[in-house]
Parts: sequence; C-alpha cells; structure tokens
Amino acid sequence: MKNFEIKQFRQQFPILKTNVNHHPLIYLDNGATTQKPQCVINEQNDVYCLSNANVHRASYQLAAEATAKFEQARITVQQFINASKSSEIIWTKSCTESINLVAHSWGSNQLNKGDVIVLSYGEHHANIVPWQIVAEKTGAVIKVLPLNKQGTIAIESLVDIICEKTKIVCVSHISNVIGKINPINKIIARAKSVGALTLIDGAQAVANISVDVQALDCDFYVFSAHKMYGPTGVGVLFGKAHLLDSMPPYQAGGEMIEHVSFSGTSYQPLPFKFEAGTPNISGVIAFSRAIEFINEYQLTNTHEYKKTLLNYAFERLSSVPTLKFIVEGKPDIALFSFTLAENLQDVASQLDLFGISVRVGRHCAMPLFEFLNINGCIRLSLAPYNTLSEVDVVVDKLTYLSNIKDSAVKQAQDNAGVQEIISTFRQLKGWDTKHRELMLLGKKLPRMPKSKRSDSTLIQGCESAAWLTYSKDINHLYYFQTDSDAKIIRGLLAVVLLAFNGKSAAEILNFDINNYFSQLGLLKHLSPSRGNGLLAIVDKIKSIVS
Amino acid sequence: MKNFEIKQFRQQFPILKTNVNHHPLIYLDNGATTQKPQCVINEQNDVYCLSNANVHRASYQLAAEATAKFEQARITVQQFINASKSSEIIWTKSCTESINLVAHSWGSNQLNKGDVIVLSYGEHHANIVPWQIVAEKTGAVIKVLPLNKQGTIAIESLVDIICEKTKIVCVSHISNVIGKINPINKIIARAKSVGALTLIDGAQAVANISVDVQALDCDFYVFSAHKMYGPTGVGVLFGKAHLLDSMPPYQAGGEMIEHVSFSGTSYQPLPFKFEAGTPNISGVIAFSRAIEFINEYQLTNTHEYKKTLLNYAFERLSSVPTLKFIVEGKPDIALFSFTLAENLQDVASQLDLFGISVRVGRHCAMPLFEFLNINGCIRLSLAPYNTLSEVDVVVDKLTYLSNIKDSAVKQAQDNAGVQEIISTFRQLKGWDTKHRELMLLGKKLPRMPKSKRSDSTLIQGCESAAWLTYSKDINHLYYFQTDSDAKIIRGLLAVVLLAFNGKSAAEILNFDINNYFSQLGLLKHLSPSRGNGLLAIVDKIKSIVS
Repeated sequence: MKNFEIKQFRQQFPILKTNVNHHPLIYLDNGATTQKPQCVINEQNDVYCLSNANVHRASYQLAAEATAKFEQARITVQQFINASKSSEIIWTKSCTESINLVAHSWGSNQLNKGDVIVLSYGEHHANIVPWQIVAEKTGAVIKVLPLNKQGTIAIESLVDIICEKTKIVCVSHISNVIGKINPINKIIARAKSVGALTLIDGAQAVANISVDVQALDCDFYVFSAHKMYGPTGVGVLFGKAHLLDSMPPYQAGGEMIEHVSFSGTSYQPLPFKFEAGTPNISGVIAFSRAIEFINEYQLTNTHEYKKTLLNYAFERLSSVPTLKFIVEGKPDIALFSFTLAENLQDVASQLDLFGISVRVGRHCAMPLFEFLNINGCIRLSLAPYNTLSEVDVVVDKLTYLSNIKDSAVKQAQDNAGVQEIISTFRQLKGWDTKHRELMLLGKKLPRMPKSKRSDSTLIQGCESAAWLTYSKDINHLYYFQTDSDAKIIRGLLAVVLLAFNGKSAAEILNFDINNYFSQLGLLKHLSPSRGNGLLAIVDKIKSIVS
Repeated sequence: MKNFEIKQFRQQFPILKTNVNHHPLIYLDNGATTQKPQCVINEQNDVYCLSNANVHRASYQLAAEATAKFEQARITVQQFINASKSSEIIWTKSCTESINLVAHSWGSNQLNKGDVIVLSYGEHHANIVPWQIVAEKTGAVIKVLPLNKQGTIAIESLVDIICEKTKIVCVSHISNVIGKINPINKIIARAKSVGALTLIDGAQAVANISVDVQALDCDFYVFSAHKMYGPTGVGVLFGKAHLLDSMPPYQAGGEMIEHVSFSGTSYQPLPFKFEAGTPNISGVIAFSRAIEFINEYQLTNTHEYKKTLLNYAFERLSSVPTLKFIVEGKPDIALFSFTLAENLQDVASQLDLFGISVRVGRHCAMPLFEFLNINGCIRLSLAPYNTLSEVDVVVDKLTYLSNIKDSAVKQAQDNAGVQEIISTFRQLKGWDTKHRELMLLGKKLPRMPKSKRSDSTLIQGCESAAWLTYSKDINHLYYFQTDSDAKIIRGLLAVVLLAFNGKSAAEILNFDINNYFSQLGLLKHLSPSRGNGLLAIVDKIKSIVS
C-alpha cells in the first residue's frame, strides 16, 4: 500500500494556502463542512465549460453527455455505499432534505396516533425537528434513546424504548458533537425484531468510515456532499427500493412525472419520482469526483494517518489545563468537544485571531446539551489535511488562553473609553441597531475643515475618501483628527479614534484593532472594502507614531 | 449608452468555443438552462479557494466572510426584482421547489374543501402538479384559464374563472413553450378583487425582461438561477413578508430553529425559517455574480440587440417550408415553438449532427399540447449570445430537412443489413437490453487469429486494444476483419462492420457513422473513450479506402 503523503494531500486543497487574520489558516470545522480539492473544483468548471445542458429532457449530444455524467455519479455513490441498485440513490439538496423527504413522504402516510418514533439524545436538529412536525401531524409519539457516559447510545435501553409500537428508529451513525460510532448494528437488529424501519443519519460518518448499507441492512441512510470534499447543495437519500416505491412523491414538477393532464397525473419510477425540477447537475457531477478522490486516497494508508492524528490530538488536548471533554474516552474519529474554564466564545474568537477556525456553541444539537447539562462546547473537527503541528499550535493557544486572559483584552479593559463603547455595542443586538449607533457617532465626529481635506491628508487604500491629521502633546500623547465623505466610515473612524486619541506611541502600537472590532461585534459586518479602508487608516496611524 | 458587443459578450462563455459532432456548438435550448459566463464560474471557484465555510453558524473570520457574501447575494436578488426587504427572498434549490414550498406550506394549511386554485393551460408541470397534490389533500378544486390564439391567457375568461371561491391564482409570467408575456397585471388585479393570492412563475421571464415585484404587487414570485447564467441548484422564492410570516416552516433542521428540545421547538424569523440545513452556499454566491453580470450588460443596449435577434429569427423561421408556429404572432422573447412536416425527433437529431442543440417534445407542459391539440413541437430558445448567423445556419438546415430526407438516412434505408439492425435496436428499450444485444453480436464476431493481432494491425486511439485487417474483391468492394480484447468493443465493431463490409470506397466514404449510431440509439451510451476508439477505427477504415 502506498504511503499517505500529508504534504501532497494538503496541496490538493487551494484554500489551505490562504491566511486568515495574517496567520496561515488552520481549519478545524470539518464537521460543519470540509474544504474542496482542486479536482472537485475543476470538475464543476468542466461541466460549465464543456458539457452544460439540462439533463434527461433533451436528446442532443450535449444533454446526453450531461445526463450520462449525472447518472454515472449516481452509480458512483451507489458503489461507494454498496447499495444494490442505483435507483435506490435519490439526489436531494442536503442531508436535511433527505430526512425531511422520508419524514414527510413515509411518515405522514404511514404513522398513526400512538405509533412511536425513536430518536436519540445525540441527534442533530435535522434528525429531530422533521420528526416532531410529523408526530404532531399524525399523533405519533417520540421516544428518546439515552446516551452512556462515553456519549454513545446506551444499548441497555434498546429493549425498553424500541418496542412493539415503534414504527421507525432514526439515529446518527456518528453524532456531530461526540465523534463516536453508535452501536447501529444492534439498534438496527432491535428495530427489525419489532418490525420497525431504520433511518441512519450518516452526515458525519460517511466521510470518515466506510459504509455498506447492505451489510448494515438499514432502510434509509442519508448524508451530504459538502461534508466529504464535495460541493454545497447536494444531498443523498439511500432507501430500499421497495420502500421508496411504496412512498408517494415528496415534491412535484418536471422530471418526476410520466403523464400530466388536468384530469390526472402519473409518476415516473425510481429514482426520478423523487427528483422534481432541474437538479443540481454540476454539483452532483462534482460530487462524484469527490468520491473518486476519496477512493483514490483509500488506496494509500490514509487510515493509519487518521489514527495517528486522532491519537495525537486526543493526547495533546488532554494536557490542556481546565480542558474537559464533554464525554468520557477517546472519540472514534478526530472530532473533539470540550469546555474550558474561560468563556468559550472568547476562546473561539481569540483562536480566530490566530487563523484557527473552530466551532463553539451547541452545534445544532440543543437536546444533547440539555441531556449533558452543559451550555455548549468548543468542537475541533479534523480532516486528514490537518497536521500534527497544527494540533500543536492549537493546543499551545488553548493552554495560554486557559491560563491567562489575553493581553489585548486586558489592555482594552484598562481603558474606560474603549470599555464603555464595547459595553454599549454589546447591548445592541443586530446589525441594524449597531449601524444606527455608528451613524450617530459619525454625526458627532467634528468635521475637518475643507482646507485640511487635501491630497496630503488623504489615506490611500480607502474606497471612500478619508483624511487624517494629528498632533502630539508635551507628554508625547497623540491626538488624531479624521473625516470621510461616507457617513458609515465617519462612524467607524469615531470608534477607531476612541482607541487611539490621548495614547502614547507604545500604547497605540500594542493595541489590537481586530480584537477591538471583534469585541464590538463589528468584525463580521465589515465588507472587505470597508475593512481594508479601516486597516489602511490604522496602518497610517501606526506608521505615524513609530 | 454603450454598444452591446456580441463578439465580446460571446467570449464570456467558454462553452461557446467548443465543437459538438465536429461543428461549432449552436446552443438554442436556453429555455431549459443557459450557459455560464467565466465570471460566474470564477466566483464559484473563489468561494472554494478563498472563503469556504458553513454560513450563519460559526463566528470565525472565514465563516463570517462566507455569511456576508451569502447574505449580500440575498440583497442583490432583492434589488434585482425590487422586493421591499431582503428577508422576503428565500433560497430554495429550484424554481420547482419554490412552488412546492408555497403549495405545501401555504396551500395545505389555508385551503379547504371547495376552495378554488386557478392555473392556466400554459403552465409548466412544476406549476400544475404541486397544486394537484394539495387539491387532492384539501378538497380544493382546480380551474384552468384558457389561452387565446396568440397563446397568452385569455383575459375575457378572467371574470368567469377567478371568482369568489378562488384562493390563489398561479400563472407563468411567460410560458416556457410560447414565449409571450401573459397579461399578469390584469390577472393580479382580478385576483385581488376577489381576495385571492397570486403566485407568478417567473422562470422564463426574469432573465429576459425586467421584473418589479412591488409594481406587480404579486404575493409570490418564483424563479431559478440556472436559467439566468447562474449555477444549477439555486432557486428563489419571493413572498410578501406578512404572508411568509404566517406560513409554517416547509422543511425542518439546522439554521431554521430558534430553540429545540424534546418538549417543544420554536423557529427563527424570516428568511431563515424556510432555510433548513446547509444551503447551496457557493451556488448562491455565484448566482449573485450572474445577476451583477446581467446588470452590467443592462448598461449596454442589449435590449436593442435582443429585439433585432427576435425579429430576425422570427422572419427567417417564417420562411421555412412546412414550418408552422404553434400559436399566432411573433413572441415577446426569442423563444420559438413550431412543427414541421417531418418527424420532429428526426429533425432535432439531424440538427444535433450539425452541433445545433434544440429541444423537441412537450417541454414539461403536456396540458398545453392537449389544449392546442398537437403532439409536441420543436423549441428554439435564444439567448443574447446567439447570433444572426447562427439563425441562418439553423434556418438553412430546417429548410433542407423539410424539403428532402437527409441523404445519410436514405442511404441507410437502402441498406438491408444496416436497416435490419437499426430496426432490431429500435425495439430494444433501455441500455441494459441494448448492451446485452451488443455482447451477443460481439460473441458472434469471428476472432482474428493471434498471429494477425500484431502492432501493424493495432489501431491507435483505442482505450482497449483493437485490431483491423482488410481485403478487396475483384469488384473493388472491401471486406474488413477486426477484433478487440474488450467484449463490448467487439459488439460495437460488429455493428460497424455491418455498415462497411461489402461496400465500395465511395459508399464507405459517404456513410455517416454518427447518424448510424444515433439511429441505433447508441450515441448517448458511448463513453468519450469508447466513442473516440470507435471513431479511430472508422477513420482508419476511411483512410484505407481513400
């Protein structure tokens, strides 16, 4: 078996060469979406540059090519999860839609009052809310499988909860917060023994472990392309043919009909019955390239590398003071959820300042956090393009952050003016109210006399015109005056000046402006051009005092 | 106003530089999907190369950038159709899904037995079947507006059909078969007068004419990105905020919830309530680039060019013998539907041999054809990248085809062996049975002795190995022997030899192999490598005899 070459593997992903906040991107939110290799990007381009046409409906060469590629993608997915027929693969827009399709088309028609739907406490909202809606509509009842201390579904509860009245059991193969493989073989066996169907949410599993739907013998298996190197906007529903056959269509329109008239309409056979409208043609074809990419790397010892990465990250994270994993034991895939003594949002935004992308919160799995009795967690979810040295960087930052407050935060807290405005902005919810406040601040900012708004005071790099002058007092403290032709920029300048006016050169040079805007909750509302304009002004101020 | 430069405009679309069946592509199926300009392709690449992250859920810089672009796209669409708020723009996967959303979320909850849904005979299946399903579920009744001889909705029928019991009127702005602007102002006014809502299917209109939903004062307006230079997998639902607010969610999952617990769940405000799951992030962002592209060209006199193209094509097509437009009068956009004395499928596949992509059939609008009492039509739908000389090419071919049968077809008909196999293959439905027949033919093909399978008889350009030898009789007729290591190739070779064995050099040189495979129904099942391999063999045969 060929060696897995991490350097060569990383090179396939163009985004991994970029910087975030002046640091190389360390992307650790792969549970939310993975990055895309060049071959997938190219494949999508090729569709648009070489064979773009609507599928199935036309017989000309271009459409035939597009259709052949589109249907070949279905076979690629079929083989990837070892379904017995390609017509058991239904294209949807997302894993979420796949579940909604089953809940609506199967659930609304098959469930009756008192029937039981079994879920688990570890489910993503996408595998909870559609079932709540169908339960409300049909009078069915939801029962919930508890988790054990390791965070997987407690098998000792199966017999109690999956009972005669159970019609369907819907659980995740791997929870998006816990990263451990649920005992789905036992769950599926128990469901079968009471005649219940099973739906497995494979969103986190399918990119990480090999899946064989025939061996599992589940009735439905759902996942999405964008979590496995594929494009956004493509999901998959696998369903056993005889079940899909018996279900009514979910959405209606072109492609899925056989004959339409105002006196009656008949539907196409599988898979088209469930694929109304023009599908995401380029996305589906690019997705099949992503699967080929995975297949190619399966031929190297990726598995070995993933194990090393998992073990290393688990060991290193375990060493961070105050870090507490939310469940006991090492996860099965490189996905780690934990709390720290520090405020988790603050930690995440501090990590972001160093280019480290992690997710914080309740991860679309609120009931899990209720069950665990915690408010949220930080999640690091790694892909095979992550490296041991990236793990080192993150662990170092976490260790630092869990020991002392970040110096920039401290400095800001020492400063009453800055602190006051941060507290004002924190109380303002939503960009509209923040925007209003900025406009007010801009209005109050004294105008610079026209005579001073000249080429010599103009700042290069601003989309809108902005001007800056300054003076220095006998204590070597700086005072800046600034103006702009754009009201919003005047507001932002007022906020900047508050941090710099009356300060020494050292204080100005040490001030972390990104952190400041992040605390104001403004960072994400700065368009690239406005952001660059502001940075140009801050750079100018720093160059003046240095 | 700047001139619209057709040459410069065409250069934006990489696919227009390609050949189809050895002829420059003439793409006339824009009603099904348009081609994509380089800037849209680039935008989608940029997302994946520079700012790919899941939206809304994370606060790190990359996710904030992706979210900002995603939400800016919503504003771009809002401004493009002049909606009053960006929260009135809901992202869906297709125009079809937008209609299904309204039919399900509004229709299932608001319609009662005896309520009337009004459609028209000109609707696409996507604006019929969802309403049939909801009517069946609720006991509502569908009434259908007739068309006049010009193919637009007959306004004299409005008062009769849109009556007190009407709850919603769903009609297309421009039918996808007729290309004429329906009198939707009058239809909306009549619907209002009886208190009914209106849904306008803008799939064909929005790329061709300017749309102002506030001026129209419709309740819902739906369209898709891929018909206006955008990517596949993105649709738009515009709805008035107060209506969308009052409607229950359509799909459920992440993003659309405010709080989830097993004791109850609450939903986000607009637009997120209707956007469960990870959306088509890269598609939405690339779509907004497509709208900017349209906006940029609106500043040139595109309008003038479109008018010239429309008038020219209408006039030229009118000159084709036996061509009959399916309705009276010139269409409002460059979309032409007609019949000819010849078999329409044959005409379309002949056009395809010259690189001309047109659509033939009933265009997902079967009730329209029932209403018009015809079986189908050929549709040419033009975009502003089509040229007057492309129109000339098509009109010349149509004139030729409507006068005499294609010589290749004639030739094939003269040939009993060829004709026999064509008729055999025509009876075989589906690739699986055709495949089986090819394998049988391959089995019957005599093997070439090993001694003859040498480098000197090997054909260059085949993925699988293939060999060819020949002899010539005293009448100067050729006899070929051939073999391959692939069974499927042996089957295809048997089919090829049938056409060439016992023929003169002239007959061989004049034989149209593409047409032959098209008639066998095999053209679309040839993978590019197999197709090239076959072509290499045919080329070799032709070079031997010439």
